[in-house]
Amino acid sequence: MARIAVVAGDGIGTEVTAQAQKVIEAVLPDTEFNDYDLGARFYNRTGEVLPSAIQEELARHDAILLGAIGDPSVPPGVLERGLLLKLRFDFDQYVNLRPSKLWPGTTSPLAGVKPGEIDMVVVREGVEGLYVGAGGVLHKDTPAEIATEESLNTRHGVERVIRDAFGRAQRRDRRHLTMVHKTNVLTKAGGLWARTFAAVAAEFPEVTTEYQHIDAASMFMVSNPQRYDVVVTDNLFGDILTDIAAAVTGGIGMAASGSVNPERKFPSTFEPVHGSAPDIAGQGIADPAAAILSASLLLEHLGHHDEARRVSEAVAAEVASRTAGAPLRTAEVGDRIAAAL
Amino acid sequence: MARIAVVAGDGIGTEVTAQAQKVIEAVLPDTEFNDYDLGARFYNRTGEVLPSAIQEELARHDAILLGAIGDPSVPPGVLERGLLLKLRFDFDQYVNLRPSKLWPGTTSPLAGVKPGEIDMVVVREGVEGLYVGAGGVLHKDTPAEIATEESLNTRHGVERVIRDAFGRAQRRDRRHLTMVHKTNVLTKAGGLWARTFAAVAAEFPEVTTEYQHIDAASMFMVSNPQRYDVVVTDNLFGDILTDIAAAVTGGIGMAASGSVNPERKFPSTFEPVHGSAPDIAGQGIADPAAAILSASLLLEHLGHHDEARRVSEAVAAEVASRTAGAPLRTAEVGDRIAAAL
Ligand SMILES: CC(C)[C@H](C(=O)O)[C@@H](O)C(=O)O
Ligand SMILES: CC(C)[C@H](C(=O)O)[C@@H](O)C(=O)O
Repeated sequence: MARIAVVAGDGIGTEVTAQAQKVIEAVLPDTEFNDYDLGARFYNRTGEVLPSAIQEELARHDAILLGAIGDPSVPPGVLERGLLLKLRFDFDQYVNLRPSKLWPGTTSPLAGVKPGEIDMVVVREGVEGLYVGAGGVLHKDTPAEIATEESLNTRHGVERVIRDAFGRAQRRDRRHLTMVHKTNVLTKAGGLWARTFAAVAAEFPEVTTEYQHIDAASMFMVSNPQRYDVVVTDNLFGDILTDIAAAVTGGIGMAASGSVNPERKFPSTFEPVHGSAPDIAGQGIADPAAAILSASLLLEHLGHHDEARRVSEAVAAEVASRTAGAPLRTAEVGDRIAAAL
Repeated sequence: MARIAVVAGDGIGTEVTAQAQKVIEAVLPDTEFNDYDLGARFYNRTGEVLPSAIQEELARHDAILLGAIGDPSVPPGVLERGLLLKLRFDFDQYVNLRPSKLWPGTTSPLAGVKPGEIDMVVVREGVEGLYVGAGGVLHKDTPAEIATEESLNTRHGVERVIRDAFGRAQRRDRRHLTMVHKTNVLTKAGGLWARTFAAVAAEFPEVTTEYQHIDAASMFMVSNPQRYDVVVTDNLFGDILTDIAAAVTGGIGMAASGSVNPERKFPSTFEPVHGSAPDIAGQGIADPAAAILSASLLLEHLGHHDEARRVSEAVAAEVASRTAGAPLRTAEVGDRIAAAL
């Protein structure tokens, strides 16, 4: 029996997560869910972001279903670093998984690009690079101020995420893997990534490979997103590239993500890419599709492949059946998808 | 009389630069041009990228008109770091200027976006951040390898580029400036950028301002590029953002750039964003529009505002008059634009 920690969070996070939970219950009825009240409301009430007792409880779950965290009342960075990034680092969630697909019933802002044509997964490194928080500030608030940020990259960390991406490419139809970096400028980290990529590629002779600089990849993501199958890249480049991928597949309405510890030594976190959207919170009109697709990634991660596939197919069918312009009710969408399962 | 160093470079670089030179001659007949043979051919012949004697000669010019550098025969990074980036750093070209406009006669890949609707300038910091080359590699080629890249940012460097961007925003119709960074993760450099931005903003009360994270900006650059007027950002984010901006304005065919030392203590470099395109080199079919628009930026930088405007208007008129599908001849395009002036 799976034990899932639910961190519904703020704003529409609670609304969409309720639907994701409903859908998991429909395919895995004996799942145990435990709610954890974290996020902006919790922080404003307690002054704490993630008490260690709660973190220890979270650690005793198979996965974390997260809604959205954040509210204008909390200074930027506090919840991101104290909760989202802390979970990624402490739970060694080194594979940050972001599929992007142009689903039937959705529209790309790109002229002439049709549903089905874009279908990629970006495997973003999750616990190294510029996200480690290394660096410092000297002579703050004076004309002599300097600020540094240090990107730390290890062979250990780069190799395991590249191997994970090759494995995913190997299991897909097109078996194509693109590595994205900026090796012509970031020669030290780029060299490590390039040499490691070449070494791991030898283990996967069936996967075709390609390298692109981040600036070129950002351009191709707009001019020809169809070309991508699996993409592997570092933490910061992945942050940027997945938002472009979300944009060309019609925005973040269908963008799911997982911060994954593949060995399942620690729980992995699954969450929609969208935020807490305070402007529409409480009205019951948020689209739960991305949250439910994140639940599908969660099921997949826990080995429930059949359930994962059925959930994503049910989301696809529901989205394809929507009437343009018709008002969307969060709970109804969840109910329809759960009923279909 | 202006003295311009011409580094036509490789591949189509020589072809398009000849047209840019032709156009400058049409509006400023007494300009002195001096050719410098640098790039892949020069490197393959001499083993040198930028001999210091040549660099000293370049320094004695008002500006550098550059075509394109690079060929598959040269290992990646050699010419980029040894020539392009070396000029940016040694000539203190701290304002990397990249206008993006959807010109009449060109087509955006974005559905429903019409010529005239996108018109922005990205002011990219040019000599700091992750481009400084700081960092190192330890235990190379072993399982214990680590590689670091260090982003160095100074109040001096950040303030001057932000002030330059505010000045440009102030001189435009919309007077809007967006600062892009990743302050929620890169808190040290991001803090410096944010505090400096707020301080300089006080000097420009007529300019409205906005802040966006790089991931959000990358998404908006696709979903709503119309919203941008002037954008200021760091070296690496600017590299990425300007390629997305080029993509949504129809690719790099019209993308001009300047690596500018605003004080004119050193020469500034003006070049099309596109590369040497070895696949079409020598056929006389490369579009010189981006090179000629770069010449317009050069004229503007040297204070020839009227000539700069006339050149960019002539390019716009020529591009708008093209017949879809008709073959393009590099020299004819240059002749037509020069004749119109
Ligand atoms: C909220 C922020 C820290 C986070 C990131 O930069 O990784 C977000 O943008 C994401 O992509 O999950
Ligand atoms: C060639 C490369 C070093 C350069 C950069 O990264 O700045 C290029 O991409 C650019 O944008 O001018």
